[in-house]
Amino acid sequence: MSKDPIIEKLSEKNFREFVRMIEIFADFEKLAPPDEEAKKRLKKDGMGKNKKYEAYLVKINGKYAAYTIFFMTYGSFSAMPKLFIEDLFILEEFRRLGLGRKILDFLIGTAKKRQCRAIDLNVIDWNKNAINFYRKNGFKFVNWELYRLELNSG
Amino acid sequence: MSKDPIIEKLSEKNFREFVRMIEIFADFEKLAPPDEEAKKRLKKDGMGKNKKYEAYLVKINGKYAAYTIFFMTYGSFSAMPKLFIEDLFILEEFRRLGLGRKILDFLIGTAKKRQCRAIDLNVIDWNKNAINFYRKNGFKFVNWELYRLELNSG
Repeated sequence: MSKDPIIEKLSEKNFREFVRMIEIFADFEKLAPPDEEAKKRLKKDGMGKNKKYEAYLVKINGKYAAYTIFFMTYGSFSAMPKLFIEDLFILEEFRRLGLGRKILDFLIGTAKKRQCRAIDLNVIDWNKNAINFYRKNGFKFVNWELYRLELNSG
Repeated sequence: MSKDPIIEKLSEKNFREFVRMIEIFADFEKLAPPDEEAKKRLKKDGMGKNKKYEAYLVKINGKYAAYTIFFMTYGSFSAMPKLFIEDLFILEEFRRLGLGRKILDFLIGTAKKRQCRAIDLNVIDWNKNAINFYRKNGFKFVNWELYRLELNSG
């Protein structure tokens, strides 16, 4: 009865579901979800020719179950692009169905097509489930710490 | 006698000096420097219309003293771009002249013009000088750990 999951590119059609999943993910990460202005920017920035990010949704049995957001970065010593996973989130009720691995396979395929040397991501340090998942799938911890300067632009 | 530092965009003209500084930086970080193929890619990827990264060099008293490489990333909850500093390196003999702050000011200006919400970067965990420099300049540690999946593409 369980049909194969379908990976859909972000579009006008699935944008509402996409935002709903981002809101749930933000809540999970104890971070502020996108406000109304941010939702407008998400729409403009994720579609069309001058995209600032790429996003895909996963549908299973007709229901949206997961999403991922990524973009290209660049390694200066290797002089090769990297694929950076900004978000990869599976709704609670769709865990343990192999969707995480399915999305990873899709992202690995995408990264290889684009001659990427690696896939990078940041995991919040208390999210042991996510860390286990990535480790199990071949990701290795890199001893580079993240530092951020917040700006009040715009 | 010390003239003001000049910030130059990466170009055909300064590309050799750029690569020389990357090699010194790779050595400093105990990582492999770009090989001949990588140098070709660096040239193609850092100039022209379909740039994969942006780079600037700093010249002082007629000598190249520092460089930075950056690109745009994206925050999904804020729905705003971020500027990610891939490299920011000052040659040993040009330290303590304020060039680091000068480059940061330039990058902050660039990030604000592009409506970025933050500037991000990774520092290798043993580089206490760099960590002190960024902390002193307003950067805060973010508790997201970096994980990487190496690919054998290409």
